Amino acid sequence: MRLNVGNYVIGIDIGGTNLRLAVADDRGSILARWSSLTTGHRGAEAIVDLICSGINHVLEQAGLPKSALKAVGAGVPGVTNVDAGLVIATSYLLGWRDVPLRELLEARLGVPAVVDNDVNVAAFGEGRMGAARDTRDFVFLAIGTGIGAGIILDGKLFRGMNWSAGEVGYMLVPGVSEEPVERGKPGPIESLIGGEGIREQWQLEWEEGKTSLPREASATQIFDGAGKGDTLAQKMLDRCARILGYTIYNLSVVFNCPLVVLGGSVAMHEGLCVATRQFMERWGGRFEVEIRRSELGTDAQLAGAICLALDSAK
Amino acid sequence: MRLNVGNYVIGIDIGGTNLRLAVADDRGSILARWSSLTTGHRGAEAIVDLICSGINHVLEQAGLPKSALKAVGAGVPGVTNVDAGLVIATSYLLGWRDVPLRELLEARLGVPAVVDNDVNVAAFGEGRMGAARDTRDFVFLAIGTGIGAGIILDGKLFRGMNWSAGEVGYMLVPGVSEEPVERGKPGPIESLIGGEGIREQWQLEWEEGKTSLPREASATQIFDGAGKGDTLAQKMLDRCARILGYTIYNLSVVFNCPLVVLGGSVAMHEGLCVATRQFMERWGGRFEVEIRRSELGTDAQLAGAICLALDSAK
Repeated sequence: MRLNVGNYVIGIDIGGTNLRLAVADDRGSILARWSSLTTGHRGAEAIVDLICSGINHVLEQAGLPKSALKAVGAGVPGVTNVDAGLVIATSYLLGWRDVPLRELLEARLGVPAVVDNDVNVAAFGEGRMGAARDTRDFVFLAIGTGIGAGIILDGKLFRGMNWSAGEVGYMLVPGVSEEPVERGKPGPIESLIGGEGIREQWQLEWEEGKTSLPREASATQIFDGAGKGDTLAQKMLDRCARILGYTIYNLSVVFNCPLVVLGGSVAMHEGLCVATRQFMERWGGRFEVEIRRSELGTDAQLAGAICLALDSAK
Repeated sequence: MRLNVGNYVIGIDIGGTNLRLAVADDRGSILARWSSLTTGHRGAEAIVDLICSGINHVLEQAGLPKSALKAVGAGVPGVTNVDAGLVIATSYLLGWRDVPLRELLEARLGVPAVVDNDVNVAAFGEGRMGAARDTRDFVFLAIGTGIGAGIILDGKLFRGMNWSAGEVGYMLVPGVSEEPVERGKPGPIESLIGGEGIREQWQLEWEEGKTSLPREASATQIFDGAGKGDTLAQKMLDRCARILGYTIYNLSVVFNCPLVVLGGSVAMHEGLCVATRQFMERWGGRFEVEIRRSELGTDAQLAGAICLALDSAK
């Protein structure tokens, strides 16, 4: 047991399949981590139970009493009203609707809680401790299964009127479908360059003999294949780089910001980053924005949640 | 002569062909106006001379002594470093480069001056006194000869790293050219729906017998013609409405803002506003943003310049 007990916080990354959390000191250094599958624990109360048992675990691991805990921060895969601490909607976790997550956490833990959308939380983490430490204005563009952006202006998250600024998957650029998209369905850009969209496009274009990759290849497998010279995979990578390049270009035209940080398993793929930068260099135009890969990677959300908790503990 | 002399400010709207200014009281009410052609007075010193003579004129008209003047605000048709009071570049006024306009005005007038880009100033005016009085987040989209946007977030102008946020004329949407654009040339959207772009497109498509309008018709004449049933003009209006609709849609996706205000002679044309709203309603999708016409019209810049001056006088 540590004798000098200071201020400690918990960062929580609630994902569709995994729950990860960590205890950190007042400089944001992580002392202990814990993770669990969320399978079978998808109602809000069950997730809060899981969080509490995880917190007990990491506090014990770090040799800290419960009284050392000053605040918690959580990133959630859904639209979140930060002022009210309310998860408005998620397409994961059995589709939460209007879950008062902050209240649930505060009631159980007895310390202040902050909840925000996962991409926003990751953007905040990159801004404080990652690839965007040196800038006040940037966009964090995350591509995993889907696609989303966190917008940091003057060091603060910009969230929009319905807490859904930065839904760049719905943007229109040359080369995407102009068909209107129903609410809840993936947007035109997400359909082409989100992880799931890339899989679907691949399956549409896959033909025996045209590629050495399987029909069920994932986005990152396809990008790996492109790097090894697979022609069909290269074609897919080139299209993704063009659409991603246009998306980043439009963001840079609107925000005139110096930096876009790419996060999520798909956008962080080295092959896609290189191909996107090359496309933009060849294309030229008024392209001034720098494209960096996330430095925090899969820890971006956890780091952001810790930073949110630290701010709230102050 | 008024006995009780309070605080008065001057708002200045420097345009490519006209210079307009007005004196206003501390509630922003205009007491007197003055305008002049800028032809033959395009160097910075000559424009400042012209401004000073205009200011003398309106002060006299309003029966105010020079000592009543507390600040001036000016909108300039170019990229402007607001912190330094520097007009970085204009494509009008003989192409000013790095003109220290604030310093020139302050030296001559002996009161604080604020200078900003004309579209930003107009956006500020609409936010304080016009169509966006009731909202803290909106985009002001101006289409005249060219196209530009002023972005107001949380009641403040967002200007970007090189003072050129909101250059939406360079955005890419379905239906525009994907060719990269050289610096200083109109962007792909501007080429299609800016006033000059519309004229050029019209001349490309114009054929004797296909329309009752002349080959040299202006954008607003073409939109008027569409309203009277001219088929070729209707086709042009429909295309403009689609491109403008996509542009507004992309802005609403990024900012999740409740309102876009249309200003400038082309975007304020009733026919274009109605056609754009109709296109977006038919198109559907996740379109939530309200489209309003500017309330201040050609006075938006003057009103914004007055508000900037009032803020600076405080």
